[in-house]
Amino acid sequence: MIDKSVAPIDKAMVKAAQQRNQQLAKPYRSLGKLETLSAQIAGIRRELFPLIKGGAAVVVFSADNGVALQGVTPLGQEVTMQQTTNMAEGRAGISVLCKNADAKLFIVDVGMAQDSCAARVLRKKIRSGTSDISQGPAMTRNECEQAMDVGAQMADLCVSQDMVLLGGGEMGIGNTTTSSAILSVLLDKDVEAVTGHGAGLSEEAYLHKMNMIRQAITINQPDKNDPIDVLHKLGGFDIAALTGYYIRAAQLRRVVVVDGFITIVAALLAYRIAPNIRDYFVLSHRSMEPGYDLAAKEIGISPVLDLQMRLGEGTGCPLVFNLLEASVRVLRDMATFEEISIDNAGLVDCWEQRSGLHDDNIDE
Amino acid sequence: MIDKSVAPIDKAMVKAAQQRNQQLAKPYRSLGKLETLSAQIAGIRRELFPLIKGGAAVVVFSADNGVALQGVTPLGQEVTMQQTTNMAEGRAGISVLCKNADAKLFIVDVGMAQDSCAARVLRKKIRSGTSDISQGPAMTRNECEQAMDVGAQMADLCVSQDMVLLGGGEMGIGNTTTSSAILSVLLDKDVEAVTGHGAGLSEEAYLHKMNMIRQAITINQPDKNDPIDVLHKLGGFDIAALTGYYIRAAQLRRVVVVDGFITIVAALLAYRIAPNIRDYFVLSHRSMEPGYDLAAKEIGISPVLDLQMRLGEGTGCPLVFNLLEASVRVLRDMATFEEISIDNAGLVDCWEQRSGLHDDNIDE
Repeated sequence: MIDKSVAPIDKAMVKAAQQRNQQLAKPYRSLGKLETLSAQIAGIRRELFPLIKGGAAVVVFSADNGVALQGVTPLGQEVTMQQTTNMAEGRAGISVLCKNADAKLFIVDVGMAQDSCAARVLRKKIRSGTSDISQGPAMTRNECEQAMDVGAQMADLCVSQDMVLLGGGEMGIGNTTTSSAILSVLLDKDVEAVTGHGAGLSEEAYLHKMNMIRQAITINQPDKNDPIDVLHKLGGFDIAALTGYYIRAAQLRRVVVVDGFITIVAALLAYRIAPNIRDYFVLSHRSMEPGYDLAAKEIGISPVLDLQMRLGEGTGCPLVFNLLEASVRVLRDMATFEEISIDNAGLVDCWEQRSGLHDDNIDE
Repeated sequence: MIDKSVAPIDKAMVKAAQQRNQQLAKPYRSLGKLETLSAQIAGIRRELFPLIKGGAAVVVFSADNGVALQGVTPLGQEVTMQQTTNMAEGRAGISVLCKNADAKLFIVDVGMAQDSCAARVLRKKIRSGTSDISQGPAMTRNECEQAMDVGAQMADLCVSQDMVLLGGGEMGIGNTTTSSAILSVLLDKDVEAVTGHGAGLSEEAYLHKMNMIRQAITINQPDKNDPIDVLHKLGGFDIAALTGYYIRAAQLRRVVVVDGFITIVAALLAYRIAPNIRDYFVLSHRSMEPGYDLAAKEIGISPVLDLQMRLGEGTGCPLVFNLLEASVRVLRDMATFEEISIDNAGLVDCWEQRSGLHDDNIDE
């Protein structure tokens, strides 16, 4: 079993970065979230000016879910393999966006029902798809640990290639169903509050999806206080791998960039396992999938972008990489008031009197 | 006097881009604003797959405002020159962010009180600062046209260097005062609704700032139905240059990227002069300055980012360039359903039945 503890970020370095942000030649807090992000990254990296340009990656975990055969999605399991191959060939949304952001893309088969013929897909299959959660546990607890370990190995691989911004993505037909099931249990919320139409469902199929989720919870009786119990009974190999990936990335002091709905459920699992991980997370964008906001609120962080997206695959991550790079560069390269001889004492005093400019969890 | 008409964007090309976005192998509308933006850019460029990578620029117009001497700001006019020099030397927020985004940065003195010694500052001074708007018109109507022409010349220069994404910025102590004055008249709103604390003001100084704006409106009696009358009486050379820059950029079928509060006031002036310009605008980010939302609503568009920023200088523009590039690349490089043999008929039908996924002005 892998080590699952995460050390706190370096709060003194966060403070040092916040102080420098205030010395830069600009009105107090006028760069908003960029200032919060650069301070957070400094705290994660334990360096005031970490190098992050060119060090961004997204790892996509592909896996199939037995419950997909119960009519919870209009798409067949073959689409998991087709779309994973499409990613490997550079034609999926995540491939195009990673290329645009100069980010590396790793694609991992952690449990697809079919094999991809693309050489670029890393083969780390635990099993050819999980069992149907509406009938019993998705996987054994041991298989769950194995999938988490695959994720951890991918974080190690990224770090061996000097990656600093580590994003995660997923591909798996039926994985909004498994995500909603997990979220319902972890938050102790009704299934309806955390379930959406996924990649496209009629109203009738939506009601059926919720019934399948309820049945899965009833049959499996997961212990909401044991995240691994919930994960192995209701999850997918993709979600388990993401959870392990996030934890290991944080252990290695990397910025953990979360995409949309499925990934935030993995982030919530990681947070329940190792609460310190919260300060390593950057939520790239707000997903349109219901349940996303509830998960974000539970973790206690808010997304950087809101582009009304709901694609998954990790697509939010490359869209926020450039902003993270920008935040670090501002902290390092902007002149201070002292350097350009502008007196900022009056400005800082007056701005500090006012509040309500930000609501993040890093500044205090 | 320069030509101020703007032709509509190519609506057929917008439609063609929207159709292609729907054929891409992803759930309907799942890339949200990226889809809206790529369709808008296709309409502006009259090309389905325009090349925009490496073709982004920000032009910053620096100028001083006579009203700054009336205590509406805690900073002296020398700061306009200091900060402009700082920009030219690569140490200001806009310089750092342009470099991070691989965008060109042009800096123009269109009316600073002092000269910058930096060779990189283009000298296009109309006059060494405007007259005090609380005492009479800021500039003559002729000077206003000259400043607009400086802006137009800068758009020409950008286009001669194959720039496609044209952002604008400003530097001018006192220019939130002139912007609020213009906005109050154009929107017929009380001064309080459109006036903020600028770069840092005590409550007392804030009340004084509002009184100066009210006095400026009373003394000048601008005709709210004549944007150039409002602009030359209450504006600054920076705002006039931005207005001319935006109009010329749209005439040349470029994407017009707007920054924060001062720039959106220039955008509103351009919109009142040439309403078709609306479809050329991309609002990069939501400024924290009160009045911003009112101006955006009046133009009828909404910002892409909300990073709680209020720096100005054009700093929002380079932060959105990467997203615009991403949107165009997705449209061009992602595989269609047909190419990867996934049947999307059921998906599209089911998604089209639902609404409320976006509220932009381009899609209908």
